[in-house]
Amino acid sequence: MNQKRLDQQIQFILESDKLKSVLRQNYLLTQDRQENTAEHSWHLALMALLLAEYAHSEINLGHLLELLLIHDLAEIYAGDTYCYDEEKTRSQEEREAQAAEKLFDKLPLDQSTRLHELRKEFEEGRSSEAIFAASLDRLLPLLLNYYTQGRSWKVHAITADQVLTRNRLIRRGSDQLWSVAQSIIEDSISKGYLTVESDHKR
Amino acid sequence: MNQKRLDQQIQFILESDKLKSVLRQNYLLTQDRQENTAEHSWHLALMALLLAEYAHSEINLGHLLELLLIHDLAEIYAGDTYCYDEEKTRSQEEREAQAAEKLFDKLPLDQSTRLHELRKEFEEGRSSEAIFAASLDRLLPLLLNYYTQGRSWKVHAITADQVLTRNRLIRRGSDQLWSVAQSIIEDSISKGYLTVESDHKR
Repeated sequence: MNQKRLDQQIQFILESDKLKSVLRQNYLLTQDRQENTAEHSWHLALMALLLAEYAHSEINLGHLLELLLIHDLAEIYAGDTYCYDEEKTRSQEEREAQAAEKLFDKLPLDQSTRLHELRKEFEEGRSSEAIFAASLDRLLPLLLNYYTQGRSWKVHAITADQVLTRNRLIRRGSDQLWSVAQSIIEDSISKGYLTVESDHKR
Repeated sequence: MNQKRLDQQIQFILESDKLKSVLRQNYLLTQDRQENTAEHSWHLALMALLLAEYAHSEINLGHLLELLLIHDLAEIYAGDTYCYDEEKTRSQEEREAQAAEKLFDKLPLDQSTRLHELRKEFEEGRSSEAIFAASLDRLLPLLLNYYTQGRSWKVHAITADQVLTRNRLIRRGSDQLWSVAQSIIEDSISKGYLTVESDHKR
């Protein structure tokens, strides 16, 4: 056994515990508190397991799960970047790449290389699994927002246009899931969870 | 598209949000709070991705991830059963089977059947993936306990014998991970995180 290799892996697993303390803007459905990124990653992976049948292209479920489990690890150092925070999203790519470098460096080289590859594949939508993973990563917060009466949208005064622009990408991964997203957005407008631009101008 | 099928799947995904509110006895490494089962499930899956090479038998990573992502879903209704609570563990199997029935029933039949199969495979250690999953499911809380100076062991006055009895099973999945567990247990005794029976008798 290569003791150094195993020690590095264990240290990485311990460091990853910090993802449980990275808060996202979404609330749990109970609305007790905001969700953290570790929970979000689990929920996405579970969702993948159940909705994989709706992906446009043939996908490998194991590979999809790997992508979803590691896709937000860089947030351990970079924090969660709220997708509607324009200033922060401008620097997001660079901040997260640096964070991933720092984090993955703790692993043996082959595994560090593997995690970097998976992360890039996800970020750049390089495979059918990465494209579908991105669809799920948008649909899940949409669901949580809708079923908490638009709570985090209201906190940040998010408009329907912003939500549409961000979530249109769901269609790249799945027509069926895009229909779900569209219904949610339309209903969120009619229920007043989301404002439309013209409301602001009035 | 089968709208009813998709609706059932979405409702199940929403119901699963409750796993984020099921508290376990373990603390986060920061010791701010106890861990919840959704986070635990993610952490285990990440661990699987990194430590799969230590499994005794050839394993399918995708299948291992599936088992770990769903293995504790029944806790949504049955709650977490602390592994050293003898009274509660006696009824655990029955309570969790009932909870799984209630929860998985929300899904389309083929997926409900699939989740029941995966859960049984895990519970009964029916495959090399299930055996290795059980090893990880024991090693991770051991690590978190050790690196929080035995916090949850101390709260419940757990002895080294109890921890050894519970964790011996790690060896079924991996010799290397069993060595890690043994070192942790020995060191936990010498550091006073765990008491030995004779301490009690004194």
